[in-house]
Amino acid sequence: MQATAQSLERRILGDIPLTRQIGVRVASYDGEALTLAAPLGPNSNHKGTAFGGSLFSLAVLAGWGVLTLKLAEHNAAGDIVIQDSEVRYRSPVTGDFTARAQAPAATEIERLLRMLKRHGRGRVRLRSVIEQAGKVAVEFEGTFAVAR
Amino acid sequence: MQATAQSLERRILGDIPLTRQIGVRVASYDGEALTLAAPLGPNSNHKGTAFGGSLFSLAVLAGWGVLTLKLAEHNAAGDIVIQDSEVRYRSPVTGDFTARAQAPAATEIERLLRMLKRHGRGRVRLRSVIEQAGKVAVEFEGTFAVAR
Repeated sequence: MQATAQSLERRILGDIPLTRQIGVRVASYDGEALTLAAPLGPNSNHKGTAFGGSLFSLAVLAGWGVLTLKLAEHNAAGDIVIQDSEVRYRSPVTGDFTARAQAPAATEIERLLRMLKRHGRGRVRLRSVIEQAGKVAVEFEGTFAVAR
Repeated sequence: MQATAQSLERRILGDIPLTRQIGVRVASYDGEALTLAAPLGPNSNHKGTAFGGSLFSLAVLAGWGVLTLKLAEHNAAGDIVIQDSEVRYRSPVTGDFTARAQAPAATEIERLLRMLKRHGRGRVRLRSVIEQAGKVAVEFEGTFAVAR
């Protein structure tokens, strides 16, 4: 599993140059949730707290990443893109932060795999949360479209 | 007005380091709408199209920027932060792109100024769109909170 997380980190940093500036790191993956981490420094704004665009970026990458890992576990690679999203900023982020995305439930994954097999495309809804110092600061929910 | 737009650009690039990597530029401001621009290169993703986090960043900055300019025109500086947002990705962005945010209607601005005067805080809803090659690719709508 550790190898998978490392290869995901290499893929994110290699394919999306902005993530190198954001300082994205894969912190953990336990088969159920993926946690990405980023430092405050390069992501700070005019108030010395984290820029909303950086928080969104880490949250959407966590969702994209956990779905990428889940599909790989089912030998079902696909192009994954964000389709729509809602974000709620609950409190300012004043230090280094993480984004944790929950993998879809097994039934959701099965539904997605059936859609991919039948129609070559599917979609799934994912949530992720930005946490800092043990507190949820941002809630993200988005629809990801997958094409075979 | 040109001086105002230039000073906004300096402020964005100076206060939010990530915007220098995104390559944010103030393209125009006519008193009604603010247009920011960014190149595809540093914002590309694994598919060679624009990363969703970059698109979100430019859209939220356009909203933040037009509100900053409008408040300044009314001599009403305030701390502006994004509170919640919805984003809809309609089509992939395959080249350099812009984000255009419409200023709130005059009645909305008046309402916000009254709230700021009475309660020291207020909020306003703003829309912005990402366009590429004359086509709307992303729709953003967000609530911005302002505190005196």
